[in-house]
Amino acid sequence: MRDIHQIVPVSLGDRSYDIHIGPGLLAKSGELVADVLPPGARAAVVTDENVARYHLDSVLASMEAFGIGATVVRVPAGEPSKCYPTLQDVVERILDARLERGDAVIALGGGVIGDLAGFAAAIARRGMRFVQMPTSLLAQVDSSVGGKTGINSPHGKNLVGAFYQPQLVLADTDALDTLPDREFRAGYAEVVKYGLIDRPDFFAWLERQWPAIRAGGPERINAIAESCRAKSAVVARDERETGDRALLNLGHTFGHALEAAAKFDPEIIVHGEGVAIGMVMAHEFSARMNLASPDDAKRVAAHLETAGLPTNLNGLKAVAGNADRMLDFIAQDKKVTRGALNFILTRGIGQAFVARDVPASEVHAYLAGAIGE
Amino acid sequence: MRDIHQIVPVSLGDRSYDIHIGPGLLAKSGELVADVLPPGARAAVVTDENVARYHLDSVLASMEAFGIGATVVRVPAGEPSKCYPTLQDVVERILDARLERGDAVIALGGGVIGDLAGFAAAIARRGMRFVQMPTSLLAQVDSSVGGKTGINSPHGKNLVGAFYQPQLVLADTDALDTLPDREFRAGYAEVVKYGLIDRPDFFAWLERQWPAIRAGGPERINAIAESCRAKSAVVARDERETGDRALLNLGHTFGHALEAAAKFDPEIIVHGEGVAIGMVMAHEFSARMNLASPDDAKRVAAHLETAGLPTNLNGLKAVAGNADRMLDFIAQDKKVTRGALNFILTRGIGQAFVARDVPASEVHAYLAGAIGE
Ligand SMILES: NC(=O)c1ccc[n+]([C@@H]2O[C@H](COP(=O)([O-])OP(=O)(O)OC[C@H]3O[C@@H](n4cnc5c(N)ncnc54)[C@H](O)[C@@H]3O)[C@@H](O)[C@H]2O)c1
Ligand SMILES: NC(=O)c1ccc[n+]([C@@H]2O[C@H](COP(=O)([O-])OP(=O)(O)OC[C@H]3O[C@@H](n4cnc5c(N)ncnc54)[C@H](O)[C@@H]3O)[C@@H](O)[C@H]2O)c1
Ligand SMILES: [Zn+2]
Ligand SMILES: [Zn+2]
Repeated sequence: MRDIHQIVPVSLGDRSYDIHIGPGLLAKSGELVADVLPPGARAAVVTDENVARYHLDSVLASMEAFGIGATVVRVPAGEPSKCYPTLQDVVERILDARLERGDAVIALGGGVIGDLAGFAAAIARRGMRFVQMPTSLLAQVDSSVGGKTGINSPHGKNLVGAFYQPQLVLADTDALDTLPDREFRAGYAEVVKYGLIDRPDFFAWLERQWPAIRAGGPERINAIAESCRAKSAVVARDERETGDRALLNLGHTFGHALEAAAKFDPEIIVHGEGVAIGMVMAHEFSARMNLASPDDAKRVAAHLETAGLPTNLNGLKAVAGNADRMLDFIAQDKKVTRGALNFILTRGIGQAFVARDVPASEVHAYLAGAIGE
Repeated sequence: MRDIHQIVPVSLGDRSYDIHIGPGLLAKSGELVADVLPPGARAAVVTDENVARYHLDSVLASMEAFGIGATVVRVPAGEPSKCYPTLQDVVERILDARLERGDAVIALGGGVIGDLAGFAAAIARRGMRFVQMPTSLLAQVDSSVGGKTGINSPHGKNLVGAFYQPQLVLADTDALDTLPDREFRAGYAEVVKYGLIDRPDFFAWLERQWPAIRAGGPERINAIAESCRAKSAVVARDERETGDRALLNLGHTFGHALEAAAKFDPEIIVHGEGVAIGMVMAHEFSARMNLASPDDAKRVAAHLETAGLPTNLNGLKAVAGNADRMLDFIAQDKKVTRGALNFILTRGIGQAFVARDVPASEVHAYLAGAIGE
């Protein structure tokens, strides 16, 4: 029952690439990376200290075994590294190492490292080769797939960046064993999201398999691979986010508003937790609009709760404040196009859709009830 | 004999666009820009003080007449603006103005503004619409065509950037009347370059028409349009500079080495002057290698001299130093791939080609002679 390693192709014409998902991939990364680089190519491995502690040595050893000379670029762990000065620092260190266009930038870490290193790869020498080695569950199922890279601006998250596809993604499912438990659960919210968007059978499978996924083994690999298939299908239809890709924001409108209300303080709420609550709210709001059954919202909440995720505003009421305040955060959100309130709503589990011109008054009334004003 | 305005299409699949070349285009820019933007779109006009003084008002008036609300982003004139802090400033000012992806960044200025604003357009919100309004001859015939954008790094010029195509280019040939004479002549070196690469008839036409081109009128429009056709043909064959596009570097290896030797001080030498000298040297070196006739080098030098451009190292010997020093600058140049010396050489006027593995010893011997060691 080895090699249970799966390959998910991402079809984007001449920017197509494969996502490999399986155990032990970091230890064999040199061979897989060598396959997508020209002979003699070198690499810069961008990583943070948490990930470096557990996983850098095995990557470097494998690169060396396959003749890929590597320079390590370390940045501090955490969201603040997605900023202009750190971006500049990463780019300059890539240039210091005299890497050329045919050489690779490798992102070894979570979504922060992937977004930052991917953006550096996009702009250093106007575009170098790029390999993602996502080590958080969120990065494996979401941020490493689809080519969005970038940093934050004082004006908001992810407002500066590029669409830049990697040549290869290696999702080592064993690497998740060193991930803090809370991060694992937060990443799992995005896995559930794919079921809720358009894969009701996947959601039902997740309801049964959560314990096995948490434990590791073939179910984990399968859950990640199915998530990558789901995301890459959406991305292939809409690489630059002009339409369908918006579905991936299910749960994110309410979730982002909560994160913003908490000033993005991870002590209070992390992204996946916001998404978990936001998905339940999207189902509840859809029920209120007579689009879906209230039972669906309950079923979603029950599963997320089993996975150890928050599913309502209990404990966050002080953070949320009141409906006015939450609506302000929603309106500031980048998904607002020319004043119209766009939401991802649903007709039931696996039946999400993009709703345009949702009346702000309905959202307000729903929020007031949820906060318990 | 109005409308002598020409349109050169650039064919790059779904990234295709038109270059308009003619008199008075800035004054009608609002109408042409409105055509490539969604209804209700707004714009940020990025410009420098020299260009703003003469041309900003007519652009703003025309934008207003066509309902395009515009924010002005001014940066200091000159090469130092192609840097990280100014890039960040331009991006943040675009975000301050709450511009969205469907809104436009407009570069109104020379190559510095085009490269900087184009890069900002590429990365603000992961890519906004982009319009080039080149106002220097160099920008009209070279930098605004082909989608290269970027800034300089402490490691070298143009090392950070993106390939990002505009939706529209408006080259107002009257705008060149306010350009300093030295800048006009320097830009003209790039016009001559297209003749020397693969358009011998164009070179012969330039030899006859230089006075008319300098004066303005239909010959100027024609010279610019033919240059845009030449560059866009190369770009269409090789958008991301992996092969043929290298031909555009004719004269640039020696030219860049001279610019670098002068520490990029425009008091000593500007880019187009380096290119002029470099093109003569490329022809002389090709003659020395028995590839071309020495008469071609003389003919090239004679025409560039007529256009008021420098054609040899007289007056620059102290700057150049000696052959060793010049070779060092050449080796540091970004066109060096894995240690091999690539040069653009020629078999005669209009017959340039990419030569790989040119012996450094030959280059050294030629340089020693040219410097007169
Ligand atoms: N590009 C996209 O499409 C996209 C999509 C979703 C999210 N994102 C971005 O992703 C980021 C969040 O990603 P994240 O949750 O992975 O954050 P992260 O990169 O900060 O990782 C979370 C924490 O886990 C640590 N870590 C990661 N892997 C580990 C491992 N195997 N062992 C031990 N510790 C490990 C990290 O050091 C960090 O402290 C955000 O910046 C978000 O904007 C991007
Ligand atoms: N992207 C490309 O493919 C490409 C190609 C070649 C050069 N470049 C870049 O272009 C830059 C050089 O361009 P440039 O020579 O236009 O430099 P520039 O933008 O600095 O313009 C030269 C000077 O002329 C002034 N000016 C411009 N238009 C004017 C007008 N109509 N009236 C009065 N003054 C005017 C400017 O303010 C500046 O002082 C360099 O940074 C170079 O790297 C880029
Ligand atoms: Zn998310
Ligand atoms: Zn040039």
